[in-house]
Amino acid sequence: MTGARLKYFGWGREGETITPAEEEFAVARAREAFGVADFETLTPPALDAIALKPPRVAPPQALEAICTSDKFDRAQHTYGKSFLDYVRGLAGDYGNAPDVVAYPRDAADIASLLDWAGGIGAAAIPFGGGSSVVGGVEHRLDGRYKAAITIDLRNLNRVAEIDKTSRAARIEGGTYGPALEAQLKPHGLTLRHFPQSFEYSTLGGWIATRGGGHYASLYTHIDDFVESLTVVTPRGRIETRRLPGSGAGPSPDRLFIGSEGILGIITEAWMRLQDRPRFRAGGAVRFKDFFTAARALRAISQAGLYPANCRILDPNEARNTGAGDGSFAVMVLAFESADHDVGPWQKRALELCGDFGGAPEAAEGANATQDGAAGMWRNAFIRMPYAREKMVARGIIGDTFETAITWERFEQFHDTVKAATERAIRDVTGRPGSVSCRFTHVYPDGPAPYFTFNALGRHGALDEQWYAIKTAASDALIAAGGTITHHHAVGRDHRPWYDRQRPALFGDALRHAKKALDPKGVLNPGVLIDP
Amino acid sequence: MTGARLKYFGWGREGETITPAEEEFAVARAREAFGVADFETLTPPALDAIALKPPRVAPPQALEAICTSDKFDRAQHTYGKSFLDYVRGLAGDYGNAPDVVAYPRDAADIASLLDWAGGIGAAAIPFGGGSSVVGGVEHRLDGRYKAAITIDLRNLNRVAEIDKTSRAARIEGGTYGPALEAQLKPHGLTLRHFPQSFEYSTLGGWIATRGGGHYASLYTHIDDFVESLTVVTPRGRIETRRLPGSGAGPSPDRLFIGSEGILGIITEAWMRLQDRPRFRAGGAVRFKDFFTAARALRAISQAGLYPANCRILDPNEARNTGAGDGSFAVMVLAFESADHDVGPWQKRALELCGDFGGAPEAAEGANATQDGAAGMWRNAFIRMPYAREKMVARGIIGDTFETAITWERFEQFHDTVKAATERAIRDVTGRPGSVSCRFTHVYPDGPAPYFTFNALGRHGALDEQWYAIKTAASDALIAAGGTITHHHAVGRDHRPWYDRQRPALFGDALRHAKKALDPKGVLNPGVLIDP
Repeated sequence: MTGARLKYFGWGREGETITPAEEEFAVARAREAFGVADFETLTPPALDAIALKPPRVAPPQALEAICTSDKFDRAQHTYGKSFLDYVRGLAGDYGNAPDVVAYPRDAADIASLLDWAGGIGAAAIPFGGGSSVVGGVEHRLDGRYKAAITIDLRNLNRVAEIDKTSRAARIEGGTYGPALEAQLKPHGLTLRHFPQSFEYSTLGGWIATRGGGHYASLYTHIDDFVESLTVVTPRGRIETRRLPGSGAGPSPDRLFIGSEGILGIITEAWMRLQDRPRFRAGGAVRFKDFFTAARALRAISQAGLYPANCRILDPNEARNTGAGDGSFAVMVLAFESADHDVGPWQKRALELCGDFGGAPEAAEGANATQDGAAGMWRNAFIRMPYAREKMVARGIIGDTFETAITWERFEQFHDTVKAATERAIRDVTGRPGSVSCRFTHVYPDGPAPYFTFNALGRHGALDEQWYAIKTAASDALIAAGGTITHHHAVGRDHRPWYDRQRPALFGDALRHAKKALDPKGVLNPGVLIDP
Repeated sequence: MTGARLKYFGWGREGETITPAEEEFAVARAREAFGVADFETLTPPALDAIALKPPRVAPPQALEAICTSDKFDRAQHTYGKSFLDYVRGLAGDYGNAPDVVAYPRDAADIASLLDWAGGIGAAAIPFGGGSSVVGGVEHRLDGRYKAAITIDLRNLNRVAEIDKTSRAARIEGGTYGPALEAQLKPHGLTLRHFPQSFEYSTLGGWIATRGGGHYASLYTHIDDFVESLTVVTPRGRIETRRLPGSGAGPSPDRLFIGSEGILGIITEAWMRLQDRPRFRAGGAVRFKDFFTAARALRAISQAGLYPANCRILDPNEARNTGAGDGSFAVMVLAFESADHDVGPWQKRALELCGDFGGAPEAAEGANATQDGAAGMWRNAFIRMPYAREKMVARGIIGDTFETAITWERFEQFHDTVKAATERAIRDVTGRPGSVSCRFTHVYPDGPAPYFTFNALGRHGALDEQWYAIKTAASDALIAAGGTITHHHAVGRDHRPWYDRQRPALFGDALRHAKKALDPKGVLNPGVLIDP
């Protein structure tokens, strides 16, 4: 299936979708949740039925070979994969299609594309896997820009060099998750960065958005795996040194990690790798409620045990993913190592769980993470992105938002944010919806709570309804001290809250830094800061 | 002794020094090393014998209470504690004494001081413990500045708030190491950041310079312990959110961590803390040579065992600190935990050492880190700063430099840098000196080698001789791919090599960011970037 084209609407490649049984499971849940027998179901328009404006610019001769204004390519690069993107895709609204989609072959091509864009007053939008759920790849230009050129990095897809001694690899920025792991596997190495978007997101995208990955503790974000970066900016190339550690001024890498394409395009990175794990221990642990599970997880996190996985699901979340019946909270716990038996680690973590009444499920042992509640949750996690487009089509407003907060504020924070979201759902849709919570990552000083909400919306008003709920949730979490994003990024959609969260003078510093690297404001205008 | 004044020459407070026995031990080593019976020994000039230029400015009335131009204060704030600082101090050269030393009581005072400095065209030099070994606190102004005002943060010395649940504390930037730990101790908490300068350096200084600390793996720098910062810039105050993790744009904290006082003054920080360790295991392990020890340490580091301590000393380094006789290399290994027995960790680490022929010393067990080679090394580490001023006075050029490099380049890197340094010592002094190496910190992708060199110099030429050796060593390590500093910072002394190491466009971005926060270039001119 990897030969097929990426869909212009929905997750993954053409022909890929959830099974009818999976779809029926999800729809049955929704019928029950909202007490309705049937949903008005829209069908995404065929490409023929979509109207695009004619492209406003054409590439110069030297760039013709890597540029296209083909309708499919333009439609396919119009949106990311957010709820709002799906709503507009369903409505056939492709008003923000880029004028040109470019597929550079290397860093030199990227430099030429940025020169061209700067020269004609166009914006350049970097595009990895296009999995942004925050408006990161949609240009939304105002009148200042003459056109939008999307730069798709898919041809920069190689693991270019492997250093087994230092356990690192030089990897091109456009490499998708599966291709990256497939190229490392023969060497016994792995990056082990598995965001939910793993199949359709790229190394460069993970770095640019500070993506969160496999490890629930210790190495939560891609940040710490970056050894060095090569970035092409409109003013030239930046290459940082390969250093295991340094104290020489503010870290150059850290300026680009999380810069979301506004400072430059990450063409390659030396990444710190892992040996493939051979020892595993883990399983699921039941707790009477979410806060009790959270307290146990705090104890584990502060004990310095560093489990690879230590997610907790509230009772609703456990039920929705098939990991529970709704009467208890679940902790999914896993230790892994390429070097040593992790039994002592797991034993101590379970003792700590026991201090809080946590009871391990029966299926412990080597395959515990594949079976039982842990396995159910894992499968749901991987299949989730394929299900979303099906639910939007039925008028169901389903979305997630994620944040982080210190432990001492967590319980009140959780209740406040949840209540604000539930209230907004009732106000906006006239009936209750569901709001559930899990932890995706955890730190000694606090968790990263991840909320999922579902509401029955109304076709034609889904965008406004979603925005009202999103606004209520975001206002609440920013007021209560959280971050507007723990690992989904800021993009254009989170700007109102990011602007409140970010110290104003840091915003100034970032704007000035951008001026130094991108004086014409070519790159990804509207993301993180105003152009 | 904590009531006494900090020395204007040398390490620590007035009256504090090494014992005569310690001094004799060090001198005997030097006699033997250089084959000389006696050293021409200078005495640092008394304060009366030092001439300072009259101060060029006087504070406005509102700042008089927190400012002084007292001779002792000015002399005491002229230098850090580098070799070059001691040479000039011995020569009575205090030409760069600040005009005014200010002791602000709070952030508001700092804002007033920065306003004043900006208004009169003066430079402001932030001063924590004054332990910089890289020219971080000496102004070296050119004609563009009318005067130099040193801002000593010593009155911002409180642990202001403790959050036991999240295991974090809000701590003022001028808090010295011992005062910080003393205020945390009653709560059972500890920052566990113990640089060699611990007694006479401050939290703000550690953060501003990306100081390296206690942990030899995992949490090597202060960076990861910073939960949030408050920074006073010439344009106003920046306060970042307390967040255990975030993916919202480039980290604001990471711009200030390592900014060495050029962007703002860190007035307080929420710091992530540890419970006090109750379980320990460790000891010293002997290896036939340094590279074999390094390979064992690579295995431990890549195994994900995260020892708190895992320094290795080459045979010379072991001999010089009393941890060996010069015929073998030593690994100092320690695991610690507040939560659980670390026996399984230690056991596996020793197995890995065994794979490389590493033989544990006899004194294993709970107190192993206090006894034997490990204990000798630890004591030498703490006493070292007191010894340096005694050796400089005898015309001995003794200094250290530290770097980091990936594993696959390490062995050649080590030999190249060591040879270049040895050659420079012979060329410059006409006789061989010593160059030894240890690892202070270690990462899965490479070590942080720390070199110590000693040479017999000539009074009157010590500065030039040192500079020639330093230049040869630095040129070699930069050419071979290292960083000019792993945790000592850049300051003014490392600028020529930092400028080569840092991508030029990142330098531009940093200059622009400074312009946003410090438009008049008041703060610490010459450090990291040109004003």
